[in-house]
Amino acid sequence: MQEFKRNERISIITKILMEHPNRIYGLDFFVDMFKTAKSTISEDIAIIKDAMIKSGMGDIHAVLGAGGGIRYVPDIPYEDKLVFANRLAEMMSQPDRIIPGGYIYMNDIMYRPDLADTMGLILAGYFMKEDLDYVVTVETKGIPLAMAVARQLDKPLLIVRRENRVTEGSAISINYVSGSSRRIQTMSLSRRSLSSGSRVVFIDDFMKAGGTAKGILDLMKEFGAEVVNNGVLVATSIPVDKLVDKYIALFTLYGIDEFTGEIDIRSNL
Amino acid sequence: MQEFKRNERISIITKILMEHPNRIYGLDFFVDMFKTAKSTISEDIAIIKDAMIKSGMGDIHAVLGAGGGIRYVPDIPYEDKLVFANRLAEMMSQPDRIIPGGYIYMNDIMYRPDLADTMGLILAGYFMKEDLDYVVTVETKGIPLAMAVARQLDKPLLIVRRENRVTEGSAISINYVSGSSRRIQTMSLSRRSLSSGSRVVFIDDFMKAGGTAKGILDLMKEFGAEVVNNGVLVATSIPVDKLVDKYIALFTLYGIDEFTGEIDIRSNL
Repeated sequence: MQEFKRNERISIITKILMEHPNRIYGLDFFVDMFKTAKSTISEDIAIIKDAMIKSGMGDIHAVLGAGGGIRYVPDIPYEDKLVFANRLAEMMSQPDRIIPGGYIYMNDIMYRPDLADTMGLILAGYFMKEDLDYVVTVETKGIPLAMAVARQLDKPLLIVRRENRVTEGSAISINYVSGSSRRIQTMSLSRRSLSSGSRVVFIDDFMKAGGTAKGILDLMKEFGAEVVNNGVLVATSIPVDKLVDKYIALFTLYGIDEFTGEIDIRSNL
Repeated sequence: MQEFKRNERISIITKILMEHPNRIYGLDFFVDMFKTAKSTISEDIAIIKDAMIKSGMGDIHAVLGAGGGIRYVPDIPYEDKLVFANRLAEMMSQPDRIIPGGYIYMNDIMYRPDLADTMGLILAGYFMKEDLDYVVTVETKGIPLAMAVARQLDKPLLIVRRENRVTEGSAISINYVSGSSRRIQTMSLSRRSLSSGSRVVFIDDFMKAGGTAKGILDLMKEFGAEVVNNGVLVATSIPVDKLVDKYIALFTLYGIDEFTGEIDIRSNL
């Protein structure tokens, strides 16, 4: 690599750290990259840390020990979170989103990378201090959000299937009762997906009674794994008691009026 | 916001630009954010541009006209692409990945955000000059890769379902013949997903005969939309002629020997 000035190094180090939030980089990584002194890199990082803290966009943490180094802990200024959440609530409340049967059409929101990224960052904030091995979701609508959460936490994602797939090898399947529809459904995860003792967080787009989350809990038990917490974009206000002990919902859906087209959905931030 | 020094501004502007590759930001956005002169912001951006070009990590393009401004065009140094591709080929060739039936277990690779991000960035590079409206994929295994491509291109993702879902409203479904299994399958996309005249790129994890890609082509025709190109992580060497005219595959699978456990998969970079 050519020689870089401080400002250029700062731009490049910022890029690398932000691209992998919560990933630990040894200072030697940057020392090798820029062929410069460790003290110089330390100063660069101190500047980036200041910039992130002052702008409310996160922090750079020092990680001690043998595998130590620094990592970027992402955040968004609280006011920006509120603006985002209110804009999203407004988008989700558009009357033309109501689908016969009382569902809300959300694909255009869930599948937009920029929105999924920001939702994922806000949701990941609740789990950043947990000692996690995986982020788990179930196909299909929650996958982009779960992927965004996994990205922020720098953890692999597991996608539970609705049915066993020949392309994924031997699998563990469970049956569960969907809390809302009372139908018996199946979910399945390849046996080699995770090892016993793993700690996971379950992410989904929507929670009504929590039947799916409870199903994941049971499936994880079969693997000897523990669901540390659950996170969803939207949970319904009713039933109040869900089938899982705890969960984080960024929004609460208080009601849908198919007749008037009114959707009452509010941010919990 | 407080007052920021040049190197702090550079860190923050870098973060914002890199978080949304290919998104156009007016200079006024940064002028307002930092309460500083346009000429100062221009100088900041010139430094970031230099840093990106010198490090091979992309470029900052000026976009002229009314909605003009600047955008970050992402890239990876070619040597880093090669290192990544060779490492991935090695990972994919591990003998214990072979699943009865001659499939390769790939979930741990496809669902790791850091790998999906880099694959997505490399794949997106082939489509960055196309005038696109959407990235399209079909559930489930290609979703993280497609999401990563959509992120780099700053376009919304569409996820085609294997069956019609009550939660997504009225949909257009087509039947297609899976090129490899010769089975008739269905795919379905909510009617309100895209408008006529849209230009899309189809992204998937794997292509054998191209039956799925051909199915997407037909489905898009029903919407009056055009598939501009197809991109997959892995395509098989046989059949040589796929059911779609053109596609980009980052890797080619030349063969799987279930008896010896040998997987011959090579990077096309």
